[in-house]
Amino acid sequence: MGNAQVGIIMGSDSDLRVMAEAAKILEEFGIETEVTVVSAHRTPERMVEYSTNADKKGLKVIIAGAGGAAHLPGMVASLTPLPVIGVPIKSSNSIDGWDSILSILQMPGGVPVATVALDGAKNAGILAAQIIGSSDVEIRNKISAYKESLRESVLRKASNLENKGYKDYTP
Amino acid sequence: MGNAQVGIIMGSDSDLRVMAEAAKILEEFGIETEVTVVSAHRTPERMVEYSTNADKKGLKVIIAGAGGAAHLPGMVASLTPLPVIGVPIKSSNSIDGWDSILSILQMPGGVPVATVALDGAKNAGILAAQIIGSSDVEIRNKISAYKESLRESVLRKASNLENKGYKDYTP
Amino acid sequence: MGNAQVGIIMGSDSDLRVMAEAAKILEEFGIETEVTVVSAHRTPERMVEYSTNADKKGLKVIIAGAGGAAHLPGMVASLTPLPVIGVPIKSSNSIDGWDSILSILQMPGGVPVATVALDGAKNAGILAAQIIGSSDVEIRNKISAYKESLRESVLRKASNLENKGYKDYTP
Amino acid sequence: MGNAQVGIIMGSDSDLRVMAEAAKILEEFGIETEVTVVSAHRTPERMVEYSTNADKKGLKVIIAGAGGAAHLPGMVASLTPLPVIGVPIKSSNSIDGWDSILSILQMPGGVPVATVALDGAKNAGILAAQIIGSSDVEIRNKISAYKESLRESVLRKASNLENKGYKDYTP
Amino acid sequence: MGNAQVGIIMGSDSDLRVMAEAAKILEEFGIETEVTVVSAHRTPERMVEYSTNADKKGLKVIIAGAGGAAHLPGMVASLTPLPVIGVPIKSSNSIDGWDSILSILQMPGGVPVATVALDGAKNAGILAAQIIGSSDVEIRNKISAYKESLRESVLRKASNLENKGYKDYTP
Amino acid sequence: MGNAQVGIIMGSDSDLRVMAEAAKILEEFGIETEVTVVSAHRTPERMVEYSTNADKKGLKVIIAGAGGAAHLPGMVASLTPLPVIGVPIKSSNSIDGWDSILSILQMPGGVPVATVALDGAKNAGILAAQIIGSSDVEIRNKISAYKESLRESVLRKASNLENKGYKDYTP
Amino acid sequence: MGNAQVGIIMGSDSDLRVMAEAAKILEEFGIETEVTVVSAHRTPERMVEYSTNADKKGLKVIIAGAGGAAHLPGMVASLTPLPVIGVPIKSSNSIDGWDSILSILQMPGGVPVATVALDGAKNAGILAAQIIGSSDVEIRNKISAYKESLRESVLRKASNLENKGYKDYTP
Amino acid sequence: MGNAQVGIIMGSDSDLRVMAEAAKILEEFGIETEVTVVSAHRTPERMVEYSTNADKKGLKVIIAGAGGAAHLPGMVASLTPLPVIGVPIKSSNSIDGWDSILSILQMPGGVPVATVALDGAKNAGILAAQIIGSSDVEIRNKISAYKESLRESVLRKASNLENKGYKDYTP
Repeated sequence: MGNAQVGIIMGSDSDLRVMAEAAKILEEFGIETEVTVVSAHRTPERMVEYSTNADKKGLKVIIAGAGGAAHLPGMVASLTPLPVIGVPIKSSNSIDGWDSILSILQMPGGVPVATVALDGAKNAGILAAQIIGSSDVEIRNKISAYKESLRESVLRKASNLENKGYKDYTP
Repeated sequence: MGNAQVGIIMGSDSDLRVMAEAAKILEEFGIETEVTVVSAHRTPERMVEYSTNADKKGLKVIIAGAGGAAHLPGMVASLTPLPVIGVPIKSSNSIDGWDSILSILQMPGGVPVATVALDGAKNAGILAAQIIGSSDVEIRNKISAYKESLRESVLRKASNLENKGYKDYTP
Repeated sequence: MGNAQVGIIMGSDSDLRVMAEAAKILEEFGIETEVTVVSAHRTPERMVEYSTNADKKGLKVIIAGAGGAAHLPGMVASLTPLPVIGVPIKSSNSIDGWDSILSILQMPGGVPVATVALDGAKNAGILAAQIIGSSDVEIRNKISAYKESLRESVLRKASNLENKGYKDYTP
Repeated sequence: MGNAQVGIIMGSDSDLRVMAEAAKILEEFGIETEVTVVSAHRTPERMVEYSTNADKKGLKVIIAGAGGAAHLPGMVASLTPLPVIGVPIKSSNSIDGWDSILSILQMPGGVPVATVALDGAKNAGILAAQIIGSSDVEIRNKISAYKESLRESVLRKASNLENKGYKDYTP
Repeated sequence: MGNAQVGIIMGSDSDLRVMAEAAKILEEFGIETEVTVVSAHRTPERMVEYSTNADKKGLKVIIAGAGGAAHLPGMVASLTPLPVIGVPIKSSNSIDGWDSILSILQMPGGVPVATVALDGAKNAGILAAQIIGSSDVEIRNKISAYKESLRESVLRKASNLENKGYKDYTP
Repeated sequence: MGNAQVGIIMGSDSDLRVMAEAAKILEEFGIETEVTVVSAHRTPERMVEYSTNADKKGLKVIIAGAGGAAHLPGMVASLTPLPVIGVPIKSSNSIDGWDSILSILQMPGGVPVATVALDGAKNAGILAAQIIGSSDVEIRNKISAYKESLRESVLRKASNLENKGYKDYTP
Repeated sequence: MGNAQVGIIMGSDSDLRVMAEAAKILEEFGIETEVTVVSAHRTPERMVEYSTNADKKGLKVIIAGAGGAAHLPGMVASLTPLPVIGVPIKSSNSIDGWDSILSILQMPGGVPVATVALDGAKNAGILAAQIIGSSDVEIRNKISAYKESLRESVLRKASNLENKGYKDYTP
Repeated sequence: MGNAQVGIIMGSDSDLRVMAEAAKILEEFGIETEVTVVSAHRTPERMVEYSTNADKKGLKVIIAGAGGAAHLPGMVASLTPLPVIGVPIKSSNSIDGWDSILSILQMPGGVPVATVALDGAKNAGILAAQIIGSSDVEIRNKISAYKESLRESVLRKASNLENKGYKDYTP
């Protein structure tokens, strides 16, 4: 956990199935991460410690995922000057994800959480890269290249679908 | 703030308009309260301190009100063995109250919050009295008397309405 | 059913799959419970009898679970001075749980129900223990110990995940 | 209250502003009503008594209006063999009416409530008339005449609007 | 289809899986039904004909089930003086049932539909029986007996659960 | 009402405040309209007649607005081969517009309604023009010109805002 | 892709499972289509090009399907004078379809999208045919014939169900 | 508009009442902004141009606000490698803000938008500062100081409320 630029935390290890996507895409961008469990409700002291130290140990962005009454992203945001990205998770105890979304998104004035889509850990990773890329042209170029690869993938599929016709095409 | 049995806290002083109802009804039951502002997102250390000391200084129940992404009740509950009653508040930054309700109600396993209706601070006060009354027959009798007064008030109105007829009755 | 301190009732025996969690956790805390079926809509007289006697026979808290148009917790609360904990159940006839939640939570002034999360019977049990613990230091200590065990379990998982790395960890 | 065929009850006298519509339209149909307050949560015994006697004293239909966690219609339905019409009321403590609707509509198998639109007391009155008219051709004819009057009113407005043109018409 | 008292119609034969419950329970009450398909959107003329004749051919109540943008119950109600019971169906093209419920329930002033719970065809049948029973003491007694049987079934289960204990009981 | 190409109908004359926007914008495009009231629930026969004749009398598009359980657009669509545009109206009896939207949008397979935004009568008018413009290059050019005017209006405002600065600009 | 009258596009090839229904029904009406992938977010330039050329290359209607934050239909509508039909898709990243519906339906004044039901690609195809049929009597007749076939299919099922009885009928 | 680090854009000048908060707070942090109107639906070419040039002209973050079917933030995000913050606006054509939130938040994989609370323009400004502060210790210190000022303001109010008592305190 030496040179991590992005801290990826989650309220429960059962969220790892979703949150691993953030770590994977950041690895593709060559950005080092640290991944661990920090529970707002079961380990509040650990949450305070993690959040207040994040800045000092060199993290630039924190990605926090949680489900249900998801307090982790907002509480971490209250304890660090770093930008915090919140990932609402459709966990087993969530009501179709609405509770997760609203309890992460609707932060009061003064303490923003950069919220992404439900289960959108991959996008959280990309957003973290964009934040780092905001002052790092090399990363920014990688993001442009990544967007170009998305474009090409769609163009390839489009061309494929047009050639085969919609009846014979399989996604 | 010496002999308070119920701590009434809220995320912002603008919530006082709602939360004062809890203090008023508890005063009617002769239960001493302390009322103050504790913000999960603006004063997280104060929240930790308040919650971890609550038990020791003699509080028996904590009532916490908050709106929007309302983390205060759940975070306090994570830091005290006392029962915590959550009051979802339809504050100006809330989406019709849904965010307040869901971020208080949908707590994960292990850390319950006793949630009452939207803006239901009066009921939070009554519930706190019932909790104290659970092991205090005098308070329990006061609750029974209170319920009896509700009953009588309805009976009076019903009788009134039946006598005057629905066209001439004014609530 | 002699020395039960907590009555656990449910609208239908099909709710037992959820409600048993309340009984189990209370047993862990060494608190005696009684578990039965009381239907607001199919056995209204039984509900009245159960609720009006609960106090006299020594119960300290009632936990009531129901789904759909869930009237049991609120009706019981109208008939007893004891604190009533409501468990909204996502039963087969419920619309994603919204009906269960709203018809338990949104009680009118004067008659609170301490509502927990959808299918949150375990938390209902813990809340009942907290209510009893509010005036019983031994139970309160057990709750503190329980919270400590939650903390340790998360710390163990966190340490495990950090050591193995997110790619090799299995929850 | 001698020959009333329809009992119109409501949880609070503040609901009268809405519920009076039911009485008025039934009066237009020449059907006698009795109007009073019966609170499920504040006067549960009165509710039991009212419901179990309704049949015997000659009522043919009960209309029950309530808001928030609206238990009155469903509880009355559980205590009488008569058809019960439920009017969800958007009272001040209701969340845009959703709680009122769901806690009246979503009754479990065996105990139906004939639910009408939010604040739809007038329609509740018409439905009560239709129920009585189901076995009373005179009332049924009055309903047909009423529907004819609705039709004529629309035709008159349509003709008016067509003649004046949409720019000059005022509803 | 001679002496049917209750017409049971549905927008699509795929709704029969739900709507058959209405016919079955009415058969238990000894009330004759007719069951068929009438689509508001695919057979509007048939719908007009069915609805305008219903009264004349001796029906006393119409039960109409439909899903999605469910116009059948409301349109039938606009065309007959008989009471119409609407059953919102959670069909494959419905958004969790919300569209079905709202397009049946929220009828404008003048044209009520007696709406029951989502997929609540059984309750629609019972409600139809209650409507007939409103002026037929024999049917009303059958309804009382039915309610008594529900009561006994719950009491049996409750007794069973109490005897076996919640750990050994299987619903 | 001779050469109207677009029929604009609404369930109640109180909807005219919204629906007049459709007529106005079509007038700007030089497309003749007829505007009247047709109620699905109060004048079902008129609705059938209007819909089955629309095609024959030369209408090319029908715009139908309604609120609450809004059956008019879908029922008209079931009775004409013409494209039908539905305008959900947030009328006084609507639950924040959700009922209006869902009962217009969620039509079953075979009978589409082209639904526009809540209270979106202006857009309904533009869509009607686009439908006519689909085979009429003159109208299509007018739509392009209209879009150009929208563009210019925004550019003017943007330039204005940039010049004045956000503190001095008034919309 | 020479003489296509209707362009059918979708944000992702995974939407083809839904969108193929639009192409199939248009083929039944003898209307030529072109089907391809155009992503608003991954190929924005392609989207601009496709939309601005659509008119010139002879398309009369565009059908655009997308899920989640579904921007494709609205963005295409902003770039063409042609009528655009939007199909909200309940894709894997959608919250029960609500996001797809609202981000397609709720277009601002000036830029309508003709929205159909969730996953309603078949209806989108029929609506496209109706739009073409609006000025093409041959297509309009085919639509009338199609509606007649729907009617007959329902009548056949109704007759079948009436003959067999609801207990023996299988849909 | 020379040295702006944050571009603040909105779909309509009527959104300025909300979006000005973002500019104001950034000014407090000493971060230069540019503020203008860019409409996704009325000026799509301007949107493409603005987004593709943002990076080159030195912007580090874009804040985009929009209401209803709010496509601006997501479309801008698809056209720039910079981080984009989306502000859902409860505009007059929005359904309580739900459409604005969902059409900004629920972006597909590959194209994140950092979404803040409904009407949360102030938080968008703070988040932009945090993003810049992520690699700029001076800004980061200002954010810490800002958080400290929030803390002090709450402590002052808390102390005030405790001294005056809840009955005499005015927020």
